[in-house]
Amino acid sequence: MDQLMGTIEAVKGTPSLAQFRFRSSSRWDGGARSRTSIRSFYGAGEEDTSRKETFVLDGDEPSVLLGTNRAPNAVEAVLSALSGCMTVAFIYPAAAQGIRVDSLEFAMEGDVDLQGFMQLSDKVRPGLQNIRVKARVKADAPRAKIQELLDYATKTSVVMDTIRNPVPVTVELAE
Amino acid sequence: MDQLMGTIEAVKGTPSLAQFRFRSSSRWDGGARSRTSIRSFYGAGEEDTSRKETFVLDGDEPSVLLGTNRAPNAVEAVLSALSGCMTVAFIYPAAAQGIRVDSLEFAMEGDVDLQGFMQLSDKVRPGLQNIRVKARVKADAPRAKIQELLDYATKTSVVMDTIRNPVPVTVELAE
Repeated sequence: MDQLMGTIEAVKGTPSLAQFRFRSSSRWDGGARSRTSIRSFYGAGEEDTSRKETFVLDGDEPSVLLGTNRAPNAVEAVLSALSGCMTVAFIYPAAAQGIRVDSLEFAMEGDVDLQGFMQLSDKVRPGLQNIRVKARVKADAPRAKIQELLDYATKTSVVMDTIRNPVPVTVELAE
Repeated sequence: MDQLMGTIEAVKGTPSLAQFRFRSSSRWDGGARSRTSIRSFYGAGEEDTSRKETFVLDGDEPSVLLGTNRAPNAVEAVLSALSGCMTVAFIYPAAAQGIRVDSLEFAMEGDVDLQGFMQLSDKVRPGLQNIRVKARVKADAPRAKIQELLDYATKTSVVMDTIRNPVPVTVELAE
């Protein structure tokens, strides 16, 4: 909590410290499989070198979507990322307010109509049509306070805002 | 490729087969850590039971963001999901057109200003401000055809559309 307050005070003094640039690099691994490596990022005014290992995330599809079922698919990976982000966005403010959280769980569902991906209908978007998040919280606080923390997390979560609102993406072919 | 064509014909005949519902369930694991389990989903008209194992994805933050650096953070996980989705959205149409792909790589960068997450400025969105994707492709096709496949993948990728355009999300507190 001291560290959290220190970070907030530092960013108030020098807003550019809040600029972060995250990265990933992926390689097709045959079939529907891909393998992504994650390590470096820029943030708090410098290139970060704190990580001693490269994280590897695999992607695949289930057999009904022509994959080999060795890893989650991309939609499931997005739901997982949203869970992780909502967790942090809930836990940090709870800690800052001195609220003891005993457990925090998120169950997520996302609907997609693959007619969009297959381009079989121009009335169906390729992306997720909606996501439903159910939070289950045990904490040393009244339900109204827990709801307030959940609303705050929903408002401030980086991935939640990324999904709910448009993000510009540029795609370039190398060479 | 036969399987791909079979799937497309089946969906043309019965569009409801294209409805999929993906799921994840996560649990806070102390600090900035979360652990997500992924297994069941609904699709192609039934609850899928083909997976023999539960996939587990961990999330954490680097130390500068008050974590323990044991796993990728949520923004990196989103970039990874986008890579996996773009891979499938490129490879399937390439296969359908009989194009041999030798390698396919995506390098991604995403910018975020954490003043939004920290609510230190109401002019800064919490979410990603932009994403840059660089594709590197080796394939048995002229560059114009590769560019066409990349444009098609960009248009049809489920996760790309999820990020570029708004998705409605509902958040409910259990009990």
